[in-house]
Amino acid sequence: MKLDTIIAPIDGDLKKFEVHFRRALRSNVGLVDAVVRYIVKRKGKRIRPALVLLAAAATGGISEGTFRGAALVELLHTATLIHDDVVDDADTRRGWPSINAIWKNKVAVLLGDYVLSRGLLLSLEHNDIAFLRSTSTAVKRMSEGELLQIQKSRQLRNDEETYFQIIGDKTASLLATCCEIGALSATEDPDIVARLRSYGENLGIAFQIRDDILDYTGSATALGKPVGGDLKEKRFTLPLIHAFGKAPSSERKDVLRRLKRGVGRKDIDEIHRFVDRHGGIAFAVKTAEDYRDRAIAQLDLLPDSEAKRSLVDLADFVVSRKK
Amino acid sequence: MKLDTIIAPIDGDLKKFEVHFRRALRSNVGLVDAVVRYIVKRKGKRIRPALVLLAAAATGGISEGTFRGAALVELLHTATLIHDDVVDDADTRRGWPSINAIWKNKVAVLLGDYVLSRGLLLSLEHNDIAFLRSTSTAVKRMSEGELLQIQKSRQLRNDEETYFQIIGDKTASLLATCCEIGALSATEDPDIVARLRSYGENLGIAFQIRDDILDYTGSATALGKPVGGDLKEKRFTLPLIHAFGKAPSSERKDVLRRLKRGVGRKDIDEIHRFVDRHGGIAFAVKTAEDYRDRAIAQLDLLPDSEAKRSLVDLADFVVSRKK
Repeated sequence: MKLDTIIAPIDGDLKKFEVHFRRALRSNVGLVDAVVRYIVKRKGKRIRPALVLLAAAATGGISEGTFRGAALVELLHTATLIHDDVVDDADTRRGWPSINAIWKNKVAVLLGDYVLSRGLLLSLEHNDIAFLRSTSTAVKRMSEGELLQIQKSRQLRNDEETYFQIIGDKTASLLATCCEIGALSATEDPDIVARLRSYGENLGIAFQIRDDILDYTGSATALGKPVGGDLKEKRFTLPLIHAFGKAPSSERKDVLRRLKRGVGRKDIDEIHRFVDRHGGIAFAVKTAEDYRDRAIAQLDLLPDSEAKRSLVDLADFVVSRKK
Repeated sequence: MKLDTIIAPIDGDLKKFEVHFRRALRSNVGLVDAVVRYIVKRKGKRIRPALVLLAAAATGGISEGTFRGAALVELLHTATLIHDDVVDDADTRRGWPSINAIWKNKVAVLLGDYVLSRGLLLSLEHNDIAFLRSTSTAVKRMSEGELLQIQKSRQLRNDEETYFQIIGDKTASLLATCCEIGALSATEDPDIVARLRSYGENLGIAFQIRDDILDYTGSATALGKPVGGDLKEKRFTLPLIHAFGKAPSSERKDVLRRLKRGVGRKDIDEIHRFVDRHGGIAFAVKTAEDYRDRAIAQLDLLPDSEAKRSLVDLADFVVSRKK
């Protein structure tokens, strides 16, 4: 099933979301407005707002609060992307020139701060304190997760427990927040809110494991980026961690030696075979499916609806996607 | 009077503030903790926390909430500095190597996000919503002010009204927030809170005008940076704007020509004489003193106290400082 088909039930709401998003960014400063118009034009796939909307639709219905929550997470996400492009010195984003490429780094960083502050103010104006609490927790977890990942790469090691901490923090935390905010905007039942949050967390973990598998098995053409990127960054993801637990010491030493000096095309192929030989890919596929099942189980109590079926399909989609 | 003498009455409280600040940043991730320890060690002058503490002491007394408010503004300010160093590719900050120089850009940006999220969470945990509202407004105004300044430099023009909008937003907004938060933590009287906020806003404007004067008249040795930086950046500050309003068209054209092609040492001296000849410096000095008086007038209703006298002295200090 394609992603577009899965989120089709909320197509109209996503259009309404765009109005809220644009309104939240309005400014009297000409330069700000010029960059904002550019940001709105080259919009992304709006996965996070879609998740907020689906979570609300499945737990009581979309309200004005849902749109504000969706705008908050997308504003935060947009601010992060703008800053990321500065750090990575990226010239393009989504096929368009990056903001730093057009307006320079200083403008890009300030614009990121501006977008973030508008998100905070939007929530504060409407007393959406629970939204802010969830979002701030996600920001903390995302930065800590990325930093823990860097620490582990520099130490050239990782274990399963730390791997799950990293991907939970860096990836799952924001998806958990999206689902929590959607539910908060639609129901006052704390159990349902907690279950939707847990759905998002498990969905995010399944998503990231799949991402890490595709870095071994994916097609560079489909992914739009070269495979083996994690090995180049010395990242120990689940397939490699599992293989390390099974392989004899001599083979482990050989892999470590290659990672330490920096991997080329030949090393990547060699390590891929090592991982496969010790069942790393199969184990990761199985684990991702376990997390998908846990995500779907959180939806059990919800009455049947188009939105609920979309959330189930989404969980299936993230563990079977080829890109 | 020296700055250290002015803030001496709250020396003990500033030490207590450090404990709150450090506690707010604690992390279980080793890499995060290493950078945080470094941030705490190379601490700055703590001007903003001092302002929060003085505002509270002058309006009812310092409480636990005051320390949280001071931590919030300093966490925000710290996050901004970390990101600024990445944008400016700065190798040092306060005489110490910058975080990006030691740990690389990626770590610095993530750490900035982490510090910001801890500030938000600190306030959300204690339901300090009014603090957050004030702080988020300051972040919005700071980014808009800086962006408007960049826009005006690119257009190679400015007027008095826009100049006051720029410095109000980029500089005064955060000082207004510091004083507002201090008062909010000490009194429930909305009039006193508004007056302290206004004190901070006027103080900030006076401070920035003085800064802009020193860019013409200051000593590079005292300032620790070369003078004429604003002209190099094509920034029209108050002395120049005033001189433009008085000078004949031929002289204005000459200055514009120099700014357009980029100024050297000789151009800076020439424009300095132009500004002085048309009374730009004297006008700016007088205007800064007007804003100092407006700041001090906001304190009229407060009972006499050591903290109140410090706030008065601080306003005198900002318009008479040589660096």
